[in-house]
Amino acid sequence: MILKKYLLAPGPTPVPPEVLLSMAMPVIHHRSPDFLPILDSAKKRLQWIYQTKNDVLILCSTGTGGMVASVNNFFSPGEKVLVINGGKFGERWVKIAQAYGLNVLEIPVEWGYSVDVNRVDEELKKHTDIKGVFIQASETSTGVYHDVESIGKIVRNYEDTLFIVDSISALVAHDIKTDEWGIDVMVSGSQKGFMLPPGLAFVSVSEKAWKRNEKSKMPRFYFNLKKERENLAKNQTNFTSAVSLIIGLNEALKLMQKEGLENIFRRHAVLARATREAVKEIGLNLFPKGTPSNAVTAIEAPQGIDGQVIYKTLREKHGVTAAGGQDKLKGKIFRIAHLGYADKFDVIVGISALEMTLKELGYPITFGKGVAKAEEIFSKEEVR
Amino acid sequence: MILKKYLLAPGPTPVPPEVLLSMAMPVIHHRSPDFLPILDSAKKRLQWIYQTKNDVLILCSTGTGGMVASVNNFFSPGEKVLVINGGKFGERWVKIAQAYGLNVLEIPVEWGYSVDVNRVDEELKKHTDIKGVFIQASETSTGVYHDVESIGKIVRNYEDTLFIVDSISALVAHDIKTDEWGIDVMVSGSQKGFMLPPGLAFVSVSEKAWKRNEKSKMPRFYFNLKKERENLAKNQTNFTSAVSLIIGLNEALKLMQKEGLENIFRRHAVLARATREAVKEIGLNLFPKGTPSNAVTAIEAPQGIDGQVIYKTLREKHGVTAAGGQDKLKGKIFRIAHLGYADKFDVIVGISALEMTLKELGYPITFGKGVAKAEEIFSKEEVR
Repeated sequence: MILKKYLLAPGPTPVPPEVLLSMAMPVIHHRSPDFLPILDSAKKRLQWIYQTKNDVLILCSTGTGGMVASVNNFFSPGEKVLVINGGKFGERWVKIAQAYGLNVLEIPVEWGYSVDVNRVDEELKKHTDIKGVFIQASETSTGVYHDVESIGKIVRNYEDTLFIVDSISALVAHDIKTDEWGIDVMVSGSQKGFMLPPGLAFVSVSEKAWKRNEKSKMPRFYFNLKKERENLAKNQTNFTSAVSLIIGLNEALKLMQKEGLENIFRRHAVLARATREAVKEIGLNLFPKGTPSNAVTAIEAPQGIDGQVIYKTLREKHGVTAAGGQDKLKGKIFRIAHLGYADKFDVIVGISALEMTLKELGYPITFGKGVAKAEEIFSKEEVR
Repeated sequence: MILKKYLLAPGPTPVPPEVLLSMAMPVIHHRSPDFLPILDSAKKRLQWIYQTKNDVLILCSTGTGGMVASVNNFFSPGEKVLVINGGKFGERWVKIAQAYGLNVLEIPVEWGYSVDVNRVDEELKKHTDIKGVFIQASETSTGVYHDVESIGKIVRNYEDTLFIVDSISALVAHDIKTDEWGIDVMVSGSQKGFMLPPGLAFVSVSEKAWKRNEKSKMPRFYFNLKKERENLAKNQTNFTSAVSLIIGLNEALKLMQKEGLENIFRRHAVLARATREAVKEIGLNLFPKGTPSNAVTAIEAPQGIDGQVIYKTLREKHGVTAAGGQDKLKGKIFRIAHLGYADKFDVIVGISALEMTLKELGYPITFGKGVAKAEEIFSKEEVR
């Protein structure tokens, strides 16, 4: 029999069949009246999931393209920025900012921990010339959530400092109130909570950030947010729109609106909690010492077993594609996502596959113990 | 009845059903053994259609992203480059080069004409510090083809000068021999001859260009071709691969290989010639005074009729999405494409819709005259 496949990776994530089929319809022209109302709906729905009144711009790129756009549209070479760096994607902020000639000050955070928000205030007080604070809401590489709400409340007191959040894996999995929390620029990507294939990045921009855009001196052409804003007002994008993906986006957002914001956030919280509790029941340790992300659960490989072997056994023997550890965490952890088009049985499949995998690798385990814990949680908190 | 739709625009172009369905399959992970062989096949097939032994890098962006990558990977601010500017996309080369601080020298070409290739040699002799020559193979805005073969032969004599070709609408429609003609960097995009939705750009890079890449000092992160090259060697892309689009790319390239290079180029040549001859038979003038492109035919609106009205009538009354004129050609021309997934009946539909549209707009016409001319050509030169 063919190996039936289950995608439990923190991106790309599974895409609902309705969305896949909508993208399989014949291609339409991006400047035609067939397409403009679709882009109009999608942009309004994006504001809804972003919880913002500001424009959410749509770029044809991966999420990293959106991160670059958040740097090269609001700063000028030599300016000082503060990066909270607690994982592979924190490092990415550092690398992008440095590639564009910014003077990067870091708050290094031990991988697995959430940042101490007071450290941000300390740095902002010490260095009055910090023009921007960069962070991940959910650091995908460590499975850790940073308290962007509290940091937003701090940064908003600094008139000349923008707060820029990478929500690529956090958005949809966490309740992130862009406007209320004072997030000036927020990036996300299609292949995570949005239940879409990779290919689109989304960037919201506050009025405070638009003012800074006027002064920003950095080379930009493809990622030019001001031009995107002008085009979005006419329901267009600056260059050829990724029509198929945007049609899919609109369909995926329709499904999300049917579910409702509160239900979406509760579902992700319950799936994440069930995964964590099941993992602990099995006897493994969670990697995060800080607040765990609701998008992905990072799990320590037990003593004597390589995390990469767990990841490979899950995939090759059981058809379950989770994720290994990245960079210095390679072999030490593995990660199971519960993000986007995920329900309780995705968790059950993930935990069941993990139980069988661990037994095969010689780890002492009682079959069904983790699954039972997850069922217990699902019986108390309904997730539909 | 619902209006049946026909897409005859110079991008996006129609996508074959086999390709649409391949992209509607469940999403797979971009670092998994499910995906790596697909990327491996796609990259080899790209080299085949590019007629190159060099790497053809795959970017997640529109074609314009590929144009940016051709600028910011091979030059440094202040360097002199020569742009052949004969249309909207020639202008785009100028704008991108200027955005990145290059010293742009232009050969302005009247819209509708092909460049006089001797002018390129003259400029290269006069300015010995020209580091790159930029051109469109097919200028989509005017429907004109530039003789990139002859220019390639000139530029290769200049050791320190790269030849960079935008083949976004030309590739597949024209026989472009990347290596033989000495093209150092060639850009194309998924939504044209490749029969795919928008979202991917392709860039080939010669050894001469890679050497220049070592010296290039420009900020780059998302469009970093050296990193893409390192990843492509491992059948990966630098950031999350646009898995669905790359799966579709591989399927579309399979279809092309079945047809064969010669047949593909002959088909486009015959479709383009039939379109041109039919248009002339109707009594309209072709816009190009230079060599016409085989991707798209630009047609002058007859005296007293607005080209935008022709375009809108074609679309609204007949369901045929062609294209209007861009910028200063708006209202003066309209364009019918025969690019990618196009056969003889696409031409027949386009010409028939044009005949009916012109009659409705009061232009004197004998029904069927243009169609007859196209049929005559197709009866002599079989296009399958």
